[in-house]
Amino acid sequence: MAVTQPPPDVLRAAYAEFIVTDLAAARWFYVDLLGLLVTAEDDEAIHLRAYEEYLHHSLVLRRGTTPALARLGYRVRSNAELDVAERYFRELGVDTRRVPAGTCRGIGEAVRVQDPIGFPVEFFYDAEHTERFTQRYDVHGANAISRLDHFNVAVPDVKAAHAYYRGLGFGVSETIEDGADNLYAAWMFRKQTVHDIALTGGDGPRLHHVAFATQERHQILHTCDVLGALGREHHIERGPGRHGVSNAFYLYLRDPDGHRIEIYTSDYYTGDPDNPVQRWDVHDNRRRSFWGHSVVDSWYYEASTALDLDGKQVPVTSPEKREALVSVGADGFSVSTENNERHPFKIGEQV
Amino acid sequence: MAVTQPPPDVLRAAYAEFIVTDLAAARWFYVDLLGLLVTAEDDEAIHLRAYEEYLHHSLVLRRGTTPALARLGYRVRSNAELDVAERYFRELGVDTRRVPAGTCRGIGEAVRVQDPIGFPVEFFYDAEHTERFTQRYDVHGANAISRLDHFNVAVPDVKAAHAYYRGLGFGVSETIEDGADNLYAAWMFRKQTVHDIALTGGDGPRLHHVAFATQERHQILHTCDVLGALGREHHIERGPGRHGVSNAFYLYLRDPDGHRIEIYTSDYYTGDPDNPVQRWDVHDNRRRSFWGHSVVDSWYYEASTALDLDGKQVPVTSPEKREALVSVGADGFSVSTENNERHPFKIGEQV
Amino acid sequence: MAVTQPPPDVLRAAYAEFIVTDLAAARWFYVDLLGLLVTAEDDEAIHLRAYEEYLHHSLVLRRGTTPALARLGYRVRSNAELDVAERYFRELGVDTRRVPAGTCRGIGEAVRVQDPIGFPVEFFYDAEHTERFTQRYDVHGANAISRLDHFNVAVPDVKAAHAYYRGLGFGVSETIEDGADNLYAAWMFRKQTVHDIALTGGDGPRLHHVAFATQERHQILHTCDVLGALGREHHIERGPGRHGVSNAFYLYLRDPDGHRIEIYTSDYYTGDPDNPVQRWDVHDNRRRSFWGHSVVDSWYYEASTALDLDGKQVPVTSPEKREALVSVGADGFSVSTENNERHPFKIGEQV
Amino acid sequence: MAVTQPPPDVLRAAYAEFIVTDLAAARWFYVDLLGLLVTAEDDEAIHLRAYEEYLHHSLVLRRGTTPALARLGYRVRSNAELDVAERYFRELGVDTRRVPAGTCRGIGEAVRVQDPIGFPVEFFYDAEHTERFTQRYDVHGANAISRLDHFNVAVPDVKAAHAYYRGLGFGVSETIEDGADNLYAAWMFRKQTVHDIALTGGDGPRLHHVAFATQERHQILHTCDVLGALGREHHIERGPGRHGVSNAFYLYLRDPDGHRIEIYTSDYYTGDPDNPVQRWDVHDNRRRSFWGHSVVDSWYYEASTALDLDGKQVPVTSPEKREALVSVGADGFSVSTENNERHPFKIGEQV
Repeated sequence: MAVTQPPPDVLRAAYAEFIVTDLAAARWFYVDLLGLLVTAEDDEAIHLRAYEEYLHHSLVLRRGTTPALARLGYRVRSNAELDVAERYFRELGVDTRRVPAGTCRGIGEAVRVQDPIGFPVEFFYDAEHTERFTQRYDVHGANAISRLDHFNVAVPDVKAAHAYYRGLGFGVSETIEDGADNLYAAWMFRKQTVHDIALTGGDGPRLHHVAFATQERHQILHTCDVLGALGREHHIERGPGRHGVSNAFYLYLRDPDGHRIEIYTSDYYTGDPDNPVQRWDVHDNRRRSFWGHSVVDSWYYEASTALDLDGKQVPVTSPEKREALVSVGADGFSVSTENNERHPFKIGEQV
Repeated sequence: MAVTQPPPDVLRAAYAEFIVTDLAAARWFYVDLLGLLVTAEDDEAIHLRAYEEYLHHSLVLRRGTTPALARLGYRVRSNAELDVAERYFRELGVDTRRVPAGTCRGIGEAVRVQDPIGFPVEFFYDAEHTERFTQRYDVHGANAISRLDHFNVAVPDVKAAHAYYRGLGFGVSETIEDGADNLYAAWMFRKQTVHDIALTGGDGPRLHHVAFATQERHQILHTCDVLGALGREHHIERGPGRHGVSNAFYLYLRDPDGHRIEIYTSDYYTGDPDNPVQRWDVHDNRRRSFWGHSVVDSWYYEASTALDLDGKQVPVTSPEKREALVSVGADGFSVSTENNERHPFKIGEQV
Repeated sequence: MAVTQPPPDVLRAAYAEFIVTDLAAARWFYVDLLGLLVTAEDDEAIHLRAYEEYLHHSLVLRRGTTPALARLGYRVRSNAELDVAERYFRELGVDTRRVPAGTCRGIGEAVRVQDPIGFPVEFFYDAEHTERFTQRYDVHGANAISRLDHFNVAVPDVKAAHAYYRGLGFGVSETIEDGADNLYAAWMFRKQTVHDIALTGGDGPRLHHVAFATQERHQILHTCDVLGALGREHHIERGPGRHGVSNAFYLYLRDPDGHRIEIYTSDYYTGDPDNPVQRWDVHDNRRRSFWGHSVVDSWYYEASTALDLDGKQVPVTSPEKREALVSVGADGFSVSTENNERHPFKIGEQV
Repeated sequence: MAVTQPPPDVLRAAYAEFIVTDLAAARWFYVDLLGLLVTAEDDEAIHLRAYEEYLHHSLVLRRGTTPALARLGYRVRSNAELDVAERYFRELGVDTRRVPAGTCRGIGEAVRVQDPIGFPVEFFYDAEHTERFTQRYDVHGANAISRLDHFNVAVPDVKAAHAYYRGLGFGVSETIEDGADNLYAAWMFRKQTVHDIALTGGDGPRLHHVAFATQERHQILHTCDVLGALGREHHIERGPGRHGVSNAFYLYLRDPDGHRIEIYTSDYYTGDPDNPVQRWDVHDNRRRSFWGHSVVDSWYYEASTALDLDGKQVPVTSPEKREALVSVGADGFSVSTENNERHPFKIGEQV
């Protein structure tokens, strides 16, 4: 991949578009439960944003027959970067299309690509501004969400994906590795947080999750309580807990179509060029849960299919090594003690 | 059990005494990790209290060869209640002994019994007062514990245990039942909270756990973070989470000897005589975790052996029905959906 | 006051009734802003309860021409206590009336008295039960209120009021005193918290405030944020802050008629008979604000007029000594340093 | 100021150096109370950092005879920026000095300037790395501080200071203005938060405060509680509260020498080029306190003297208009109601 063109100057992960099979059910999940604000909606799609966001949307729910990831959107520094992006991806030899303003409602002219690791991605700068609800505490629920934070994608070859994102100018904050040159996952960023994109080894290209940030942890706990109150606690897939990687407090939910949403808070500043890379050993049980909690299988194995620029499903391939298997007996079942034996208090799965 | 004598007027669960095999290891857990205050210690025992407590101790750690529960202490309303207790338990026909002040350091004259459900219990009123550290915020850690809240015991016959505690004047706040007249668990109180004692069906008599209260939930989360930081996250057995029963936010830890400690916050006032009893169906997955989290097997099956008044282990018998088995497919594995089928997003255990 | 009759067995502070001049404005404050649940309402009155309460109401707002306190309600242990109350107050020689069930909607038969310190008080046991919303997290706002906690009344003679409440069987948890036998304030309880009633020296009989409890502090902070968002921050009179007395985290609001509401959390258990009385020196600046914040004059001088049993305003008399004056230079203006001089960093009032 | 040289590429506010008169007293405040980590110390100076910081220090306390601000440090993107900085400031005509590595312990080669608005400022890239304590929860106190966030300086001419910082490449997030072209304050940033520097009108050049960030609000409240517990609550000058500007939750402390420290959390992302500027009217009482709390005079009038590059005090001049006077009757005393009258519930100062 000896690219000669410079990459576009990406600001941050900006929005995702999901295909959902039941708009009303999805609206319940994202609006009634999670409290996202509706910027626009019609029979085909709902455009949503979080309380601190002033662009038109950070999430689009579009009606379709099969749940899928339709698009990941990155914002670039200016419209001039669209030309840069177009040249860059044409040189990379991937499907690259310039689309006029409004192709996605609320978004200006944009460049869409099927990126080298298989995902449908849009680069844009122009977008409609809306009211920022940061201080509209009169409408904030007890689980108020501040902003979209990052994407997490499942890819069969993490090294290749990592190389692609390095080329696109992303920094690396944390990784999961082993002593044998295997890269199981990588967290990469443009904005000054732990990540805009996480690359997780697995059947891919698929979307693992989209993460939204809250200000504090009690806002995450409240979403669990609401789901319990409604008897819909099955939407909770994993957590709440503390990640070793990123130090964030997390909760994973599945929406009515199975798309995974993380609610996330308390990571750290990464904006200095010498920000230390935190490398986690795949055998350190604290990497995925700092509290030693095992990870439910569905979290490792299920993800949302990606569409190509024509809306067709992108075929999926499998990785050579799976973190979930490499670390079985560790993350999959227990925590290690000082002498690396399974602790006697744990029988079966950990909750 | 047609008792003619009135029961003693019990105020509340007051202290527990654990036999621990390594005082230094136990001190690390209760003092260094959990932040309990040392009122007194010597080579044989450590007497501990929490920040809002002004009596000598709420927990005693005593050096021994085998981990066990040595004693549960209930405080009664006055010294005059010792005579009442003595007459009451003699009529019940259980081993009943009057012990002089100081038999347990810091505690006045007391009545010790092997109660009808097999536990070594002390009733006392007099106790040394110490400084209440409620406002000593300069020494409160980020996981500050306020006070002992309750005991939870495993008993093979919950109905019999429930009848015994009703006789002793305890109210019932919540239960786990089924439609077929089986009682799987009961929460019973004297002070105006959800419980001083919980009765949980299981091999018994054994101590399931002792619970301490914090003011807020972040103080519970911090204990998890500290354990992760120290690489001792294996002390976390279950949680943090929200109980359906009691509505409390919980965390279960295992101490170095395997004694189980709950950190607990946010239950509710039960002081009015008509306080409604909350009855949970054993098939409602939210009873043990309001968020639908499965319960690790060790939590259902492991507990601390009880000693008799001579320090010998009390033999254990098993229940006819086990909640963990009755509710398998429910609590043990998943959550139910509206049409009572296992939700497709859950594969294997939930975390 | 050598009373020969025993006092009724009071459980706790149970409800207050306010006369408000604009029901719609009051409804905005208590329902829209504070999130209290409406159990019943008509053109004349709104009956409200908090999320953990199962009785019909803990606050009644009744339409009238002049803002006033119409009634304080204490719950007693059973209906039999009504006779006890009637005999007790008749012996005390105060206006005592038996009223039939439904005189106050949702409340059973009751005894109303003009108590010896001038307040209209109702004693009752029977009351309609309603749904307890403890776990209805789907409707809890970010500032969810759990339950009514206590009343605070302004009285010209704190010692006399203290003697009256001692006679009624209330315990004392904390006081503000000086070395010269003056009692400036006292906190007294029946339920196992710091207080059901606080007695504050001042022009009286008047109601200083009614306090509601939340589970955690962030719920109190959110009410401030909502008021700011709405441009109605003038409803905030004092706080948020930490009381020295009671250790509670507090916020004082004024409703549209000027009635004062405290939102309160994190006090402590007082249920043992030897619970130590915490005596604060009137010159300790931390008694009212543990953080040394001065107290706004309105908080010391303004309160709600009390009505008698016929609905007429009870005349007000003034105290001989005022805490606000005794402690000027202290609480009114600054905090003391080790050598008792005003700290040089403080210029004017503290915020 | 038609500068032809490009400005250095500043990353963020990085450290401040205070002259303190009593190192032991200062150590109590910053280490014992606030929990900052000591990277290095000797008889002359203490170098401190917060838990998430990996550079040598974010605060230096240096022993001296008169309290003063010795230096503000900005980190630049690379060592090559030192040459850029040197050329830039030489063209600006201010005192500019290249200093070798170690001139400030732990810091590499640097450029020091007396900036055009009168402050001693150091630009550097190289610095010693130390352990990042982000996940060392075992040593985090209940008031754990994450990182330095920003500086706030008092300047007599906010417009001139604003123009200087615009020239240096800083963005503007929020301002306080009036309708008559007066700029009372401006918040400016390089990293993606609300500010690295705030410019506040007042006698200057002086340092108003240095702000440190926490993860959550309860960590800020705990510092107040500790000060109360120690009887040193006089170190609290203002707050805790919510700023209108920046939306942050704040607390202002004064250290033993009177240097002002803000503890700050919950502002928002500003990293997109079109981040909307929030302009506050000087008459909107919520700008300084979103809850309408008045601001203590000392907060407006007191600040730390700045030293020049030779260690001499920089003379101070006064502004033409003062926010504290313009807004008296507003911020200085009360909050406005809908019809802009002082609310009748407020008597005297607000707490």
